[in-house]
Amino acid sequence: MVQSPLVRELIEAFRCLPGVGPKSAQRMTYALLQRDRGGAQQLARALDAAVEGVGECEQCRTLSETAVCGLCASDRRDAGVLCIVENPADIQALEDATDYRGRYFVLKGRLSPLDGIGPAELGLEVLEARFNRGEVREIILATNPTVEGEATAQYVAEMARGADIRVSRIAHGVPLGGDLEYVDSGTLSHAFAGRSNYE
Amino acid sequence: MVQSPLVRELIEAFRCLPGVGPKSAQRMTYALLQRDRGGAQQLARALDAAVEGVGECEQCRTLSETAVCGLCASDRRDAGVLCIVENPADIQALEDATDYRGRYFVLKGRLSPLDGIGPAELGLEVLEARFNRGEVREIILATNPTVEGEATAQYVAEMARGADIRVSRIAHGVPLGGDLEYVDSGTLSHAFAGRSNYE
Ligand SMILES: [Zn+2]
Ligand SMILES: [Zn+2]
Repeated sequence: MVQSPLVRELIEAFRCLPGVGPKSAQRMTYALLQRDRGGAQQLARALDAAVEGVGECEQCRTLSETAVCGLCASDRRDAGVLCIVENPADIQALEDATDYRGRYFVLKGRLSPLDGIGPAELGLEVLEARFNRGEVREIILATNPTVEGEATAQYVAEMARGADIRVSRIAHGVPLGGDLEYVDSGTLSHAFAGRSNYE
Repeated sequence: MVQSPLVRELIEAFRCLPGVGPKSAQRMTYALLQRDRGGAQQLARALDAAVEGVGECEQCRTLSETAVCGLCASDRRDAGVLCIVENPADIQALEDATDYRGRYFVLKGRLSPLDGIGPAELGLEVLEARFNRGEVREIILATNPTVEGEATAQYVAEMARGADIRVSRIAHGVPLGGDLEYVDSGTLSHAFAGRSNYE
């Protein structure tokens, strides 16, 4: 190791990013320190501001710096239709790919009893209360087509049926084992349009 | 765009990193905000500390938080041999791959008159003065095998010969374990032209 401690620490810090190994972390560090110190400072400010200011929407649980996110606050979105997704990033993917005009609910995960992730962790108790208040008439299940995503969809569907809510599941045009966030928007749009009733 | 402004700004800020497009920037942002806010804060601190504290070694021009870097300060490295590289990252690569025991000089670029990068920008005037003080007896040219890297190597070699310094250039060719069929034609042409007698 011939790097100075601060350089080494920055390389190490970049490793917290998904998909960044030792080589890319080193490349990022050298690139910023040699050619873009302004960018480095801006990144530091943006990280601080986001960590400080971004919480979650109290209605849909997506990342939001206001108590209610823009989408939940918009009266141009149908409050009677909820699309259930695993992650905030899935919302962006669906918004980019479809002309969906309802709202969302973000589970921030999927049922995984072995990891201690049950209904409470996914906000399902809150969601059920909302179902029972009668303000939702339809849900679209857009969890990922993995074993756990499927189990989660089943669980939510059960809750919805108990409250007389129409349930559909997006079509399995999304490749099995695939992650919604990384699917091309054509496939995603097709899968969304081809959703079927969920029994 | 359904993201909150702070989320959007963080995604944008990640774009300053080499090899990071809109998709990875979004993935990084969501991953940190959902699962690793501690990592995000640590990264912000490391960026600030490095931008603030890392300058360049006054002898070899590599990134360093001290006036003279550890390598230039070490008396276990032969001060009479200088390996000339384009970037600080090249030092790490050579240290990892070889048992070189001399020192380095970092050009921080290569001659590129059209971009306004001449000898002064690469520190060549300082290097020439050092050559003329007689403390260097040998240099190894490790600039990249591009047209500009080659022109830079030529320029430095000329300076060195004027000061009676022995000059060598690292070999360029087909990488070890490489398959001729898949080597880019520039490399192959270079390797062919630079063939040596085979005993
Ligand atoms: Zn919301
Ligand atoms: Zn140095």
